[in-house]
Amino acid sequence: MNRHYQHLVNKLEEITHLNGVMSTIGWDQEVMLPAGAAEARAMQISALAGVIHERMTDPQLGDCLAELTNSGMDAFNEFERCNIREALRSYELETKVPKRLVQELAELGSRGHGVWVAARQDNKFSDFAPVIKRFLDLKQEWAQCVSPELSAYDANIDLFERGTTMATITPIFERLKQELIPLIHAIQAHAVQPDTSFLQGHFARDKQEALARQISRDIGFDFDQGRMDVSVHPFCGGSHPTDVRITTRYKDSNFVESLYAVIHETGHALYEQGRPHALGDLPVSESLTMGIHESQSLFWERMIAQSKPFCQHYFETIRAAFPDNLQHASVDSFYRAINTCKPDFIRVEADEVTYPLHIILRYEIEKGLFDGSMRVDDLPEIWNELMMKYLGIQPPNDALGVLQDSHWSGGAFGYFPSYTLGAMYACQFYNTLLREQPDTEKHISNGHFAPIKQWLNEKIHRQGRLYTPQELVQLVTGEALNPDHFIGHLKHKYSEIYGLTSV
Amino acid sequence: MNRHYQHLVNKLEEITHLNGVMSTIGWDQEVMLPAGAAEARAMQISALAGVIHERMTDPQLGDCLAELTNSGMDAFNEFERCNIREALRSYELETKVPKRLVQELAELGSRGHGVWVAARQDNKFSDFAPVIKRFLDLKQEWAQCVSPELSAYDANIDLFERGTTMATITPIFERLKQELIPLIHAIQAHAVQPDTSFLQGHFARDKQEALARQISRDIGFDFDQGRMDVSVHPFCGGSHPTDVRITTRYKDSNFVESLYAVIHETGHALYEQGRPHALGDLPVSESLTMGIHESQSLFWERMIAQSKPFCQHYFETIRAAFPDNLQHASVDSFYRAINTCKPDFIRVEADEVTYPLHIILRYEIEKGLFDGSMRVDDLPEIWNELMMKYLGIQPPNDALGVLQDSHWSGGAFGYFPSYTLGAMYACQFYNTLLREQPDTEKHISNGHFAPIKQWLNEKIHRQGRLYTPQELVQLVTGEALNPDHFIGHLKHKYSEIYGLTSV
Repeated sequence: MNRHYQHLVNKLEEITHLNGVMSTIGWDQEVMLPAGAAEARAMQISALAGVIHERMTDPQLGDCLAELTNSGMDAFNEFERCNIREALRSYELETKVPKRLVQELAELGSRGHGVWVAARQDNKFSDFAPVIKRFLDLKQEWAQCVSPELSAYDANIDLFERGTTMATITPIFERLKQELIPLIHAIQAHAVQPDTSFLQGHFARDKQEALARQISRDIGFDFDQGRMDVSVHPFCGGSHPTDVRITTRYKDSNFVESLYAVIHETGHALYEQGRPHALGDLPVSESLTMGIHESQSLFWERMIAQSKPFCQHYFETIRAAFPDNLQHASVDSFYRAINTCKPDFIRVEADEVTYPLHIILRYEIEKGLFDGSMRVDDLPEIWNELMMKYLGIQPPNDALGVLQDSHWSGGAFGYFPSYTLGAMYACQFYNTLLREQPDTEKHISNGHFAPIKQWLNEKIHRQGRLYTPQELVQLVTGEALNPDHFIGHLKHKYSEIYGLTSV
Repeated sequence: MNRHYQHLVNKLEEITHLNGVMSTIGWDQEVMLPAGAAEARAMQISALAGVIHERMTDPQLGDCLAELTNSGMDAFNEFERCNIREALRSYELETKVPKRLVQELAELGSRGHGVWVAARQDNKFSDFAPVIKRFLDLKQEWAQCVSPELSAYDANIDLFERGTTMATITPIFERLKQELIPLIHAIQAHAVQPDTSFLQGHFARDKQEALARQISRDIGFDFDQGRMDVSVHPFCGGSHPTDVRITTRYKDSNFVESLYAVIHETGHALYEQGRPHALGDLPVSESLTMGIHESQSLFWERMIAQSKPFCQHYFETIRAAFPDNLQHASVDSFYRAINTCKPDFIRVEADEVTYPLHIILRYEIEKGLFDGSMRVDDLPEIWNELMMKYLGIQPPNDALGVLQDSHWSGGAFGYFPSYTLGAMYACQFYNTLLREQPDTEKHISNGHFAPIKQWLNEKIHRQGRLYTPQELVQLVTGEALNPDHFIGHLKHKYSEIYGLTSV
């Protein structure tokens, strides 16, 4: 093998392994760390982050990449080319930004989180506004460094969903608004709302956990190469495709939230466990983007687990876990109850119909902030106006409005669109699966999930980073991202649930 | 502050924090890691170990230390001098050894463990013998590099119990043999052995865990700065004095083993939680040696928790946890049962009277191997002869004999003496405490452990690495290590338990 390429592989594998260590201590911080150890852990993370940054910006790595790219890429196969391309991308992302700016962003992110927590607690947006303002300045400067050819907001979006820009997103989001707002109105106007009373009550945690583990295992999570624990916010972490860790949280009063969080995180986990790590612990075997990752979690959570066939298969199992609560429920009433559509204030609790509007609102605000058409100080007002316009409700305070998400406190502008891109990808993938494997719904109703997992493994997970998200969607589904699939799915499903005649 | 000293502090703190990360992923490996992730974790650990080694051997660190030591140490206070001294020691330990030898030792340690596991399983010492032989060669060479002024075995002992050599250990161990072998004979000759039948049976795990947590907390473990989990072998780990993690294992058939493992590990943990980390995450705030660490675990396990006053305080609590099992037991019968003395094959299961003879046997073998008076191939025979001579029993196979410990498979020669040094230190410390705080036994019987913990905090834990073990023992107890305390304790206690008239 090319000596420079071997050198690159050694350096990239070391970075991957150190990132695996970082990921483990990050997981440990959320799941295991004693309360008193926060300060020590922060210093440990900072020391390791310093080492990883040093490795990622190592001038020897730069020289090696220059040698490889100058020598022409024809000598390399597609996996090798991918590793070189990805390494170059991340080397440039790390080295194009002056150290002063890196440090200022890191410090603001660290401080910003605390400011946000306090502001949300005190319900006082004006305390948090200076953090957003400063971040906007820094992120504009950062964008100018890393992608001077892009507008600043596009450069930020690119960090989470590479290759996707406002030019793609804006018309799709306009279309979604056009279709979903009337659908939500129609649902709300419908006289009979689903009965959800049997989802309230007391649900023993050990039963919740046993049920969640069973379903996670059934759909394909490999507990020999992963684990499931409890944390404040559910997430999927871990250090390697052979060490994938999902978490959830349990409420005595609500088993659906925890169960569907586990299914969601299992979707992420199947992607991680399905990565082609036999190609080495290298960029080519990494997962692709936030949007594609979210497509995998939402695929299982929404397309599979919120479907009628899934309810048909599991209803008796779920009723057996909570016999007192569900004694008068049926497959149909359960299916309708977990698919209730109702505008509310909090994004993370939103159903699949209203969720995109929460995202579109944030996208429009970020866009407005970056292009100067909106002022930070006006955000609470803008937020509430858009909530009224899109969902017909008015948050009673900023904690339930503009202060609800942590993203901006860490400078993650451009992240939000990934959620809805993921939802649309998920639906488009699912429709392709239905076309290619027409027995899918029968399989689901029989609890036979292996063909579905295999299809995702083959089409998406094992592709690693060989393609851009746009290329992958085209390859898998035969067309570019097309919101019709998502819109059609929602209209069809909710018309049926709510008995709407025309939407 | 001196510029060079500040530079040193920065470098040492970074190393401490990276070691804290390493410690966390080591803990994770024992407690959390999915079975399928062993290979990935090995690579992560190797990458991090490489970084830490690089930092510890950084020529800039060497230059900085040279500047500091050349400029005379008078300008520094005792804490600063300690940091410089300790940094120099570890820098020299890391840099005096050629890289080839470091790598060969690491590889042999890694391979040796697997060879040992298989040899023990197959009960075939000859498969393991080549590993020991190679380690002896490498460890002789290593000793010549790091401490040419010491004999090779002394250099190895120094790694675990610095400042202690065969010249100190041999006469003390001779004395122990002289006193303990007759004591064990007398105990065995005694007609009535304690009734231990009520310690057999079924003991629910949740009760065992609740009891262990209660007692660990009572004696002073701070669960806000630590945690307790389950692993195959009990240990005390964690990443920082604010993040101390103990483990145990539960057997349904035996609660004493698990409970006393927790108390033992709590002893280690109190040392870690008591370290003077306000002095910085620097060598001065580290724990001292293996022997001193073991003195802290054995202090709580043996001197406190195997005492009559401790049994008086906790017997009713323990009986309440296992009412069916202990309904006919009493404080006295419980005390006698947990202090049964009986020669057996396995070191880690030995009681406090026979334990030192397991250690002395290993010490004499290591000594013989290093001075050439024993041959590796003869070890099974030598082992069995010494077992017969010291404990009057003959292991039926090598798995219960020479193959029982993992230490040699990793090259840890010179480690074993620390266990019995620790036991003797523990006893000497305890006698000092009794002299200084005559109410100690009354406090124990009232469950009032705070004064004991405070005494250990002040006298030992907060001293960090300011003193050598020899200086510390002298400072705390007013005399050098004196085996009379240990011998007197055992004779007194076991004469009483077994009703011996003269030993």
